[in-house]
Amino acid sequence: MKQKSSSWLIRPATSKDHEAIWRIIRSVIKTGDTYVFTPNASKEKMLEYWCGPDAYTYVALIDDTIKGTFVLRDNKPDLGSHIGNGSYMVDPAAHGLGIGRRMGEHSIAEAKRLGYHAIQFNYVVKTNQPAVNLWLSLGFEIVGEVPEAFNHSQLGYTNVYVMYRKL
Amino acid sequence: MKQKSSSWLIRPATSKDHEAIWRIIRSVIKTGDTYVFTPNASKEKMLEYWCGPDAYTYVALIDDTIKGTFVLRDNKPDLGSHIGNGSYMVDPAAHGLGIGRRMGEHSIAEAKRLGYHAIQFNYVVKTNQPAVNLWLSLGFEIVGEVPEAFNHSQLGYTNVYVMYRKL
Repeated sequence: MKQKSSSWLIRPATSKDHEAIWRIIRSVIKTGDTYVFTPNASKEKMLEYWCGPDAYTYVALIDDTIKGTFVLRDNKPDLGSHIGNGSYMVDPAAHGLGIGRRMGEHSIAEAKRLGYHAIQFNYVVKTNQPAVNLWLSLGFEIVGEVPEAFNHSQLGYTNVYVMYRKL
Repeated sequence: MKQKSSSWLIRPATSKDHEAIWRIIRSVIKTGDTYVFTPNASKEKMLEYWCGPDAYTYVALIDDTIKGTFVLRDNKPDLGSHIGNGSYMVDPAAHGLGIGRRMGEHSIAEAKRLGYHAIQFNYVVKTNQPAVNLWLSLGFEIVGEVPEAFNHSQLGYTNVYVMYRKL
């Protein structure tokens, strides 16, 4: 049987997207196994972080429904601001569709366009193997490993990778 | 001939120390070769960073004059907040006296006392050999190296180390 065709869109977020972004953030952080934020982090705090004035925020939609979101921003101020930092979240109910990969590819193109020389991730949880594999397949390399930097909800203190991709 | 004896003190900073702290910050960042902040960074911005509510700020004095300052704070929020982050600055006119080492030792003891499991530095400029050697001698290890993350005023894009010491 033929699958229903779907339309995909990645675009900059607007304030009208904040409720949908918050729903994704909430469902991603609530398991405490991939992101540094406590499962109880407030909507206000998280939207300030994800959609603040220093952030380029994007949303990924399938058939007009937001299924993922990512953020680009300067990794450091001033003499380190030529390196971009990226954060990505996919609606857990939409895993396996390739949204993370699509957002990763788009973020690489956007980071180039914005003038960044490289993208750096400071905090990829080592046990988050789907994320690590995705980034490796998109040309990122592991440039650092910090022992026990993440307090994983099930595994306890877990190592964290620093990953990097030249643009 | 006998040297004049001197008294050394490391203590938490108060708001009365802000002018002295700012003078050190200004003289350290103005060369653009060790810290990420632009040589033109404003006093307001730098004091907010160095002495903000999330920071444990200390000063090091020789004979009642502030010669150095350092900061401890959570390296990450929430599930990463068990790792401390440290930043250190020495008055360039007081280099070679061992103030950096004394502050490093004190920060290790303080970070333990504050309950941190480790200290992490995210941004040690590789060409800042005195700092790298100091941290290695105090038991830190290099756990990451980020290519060309620092725009050095003389050398251009320069690698940055991530350093780490378990407590």
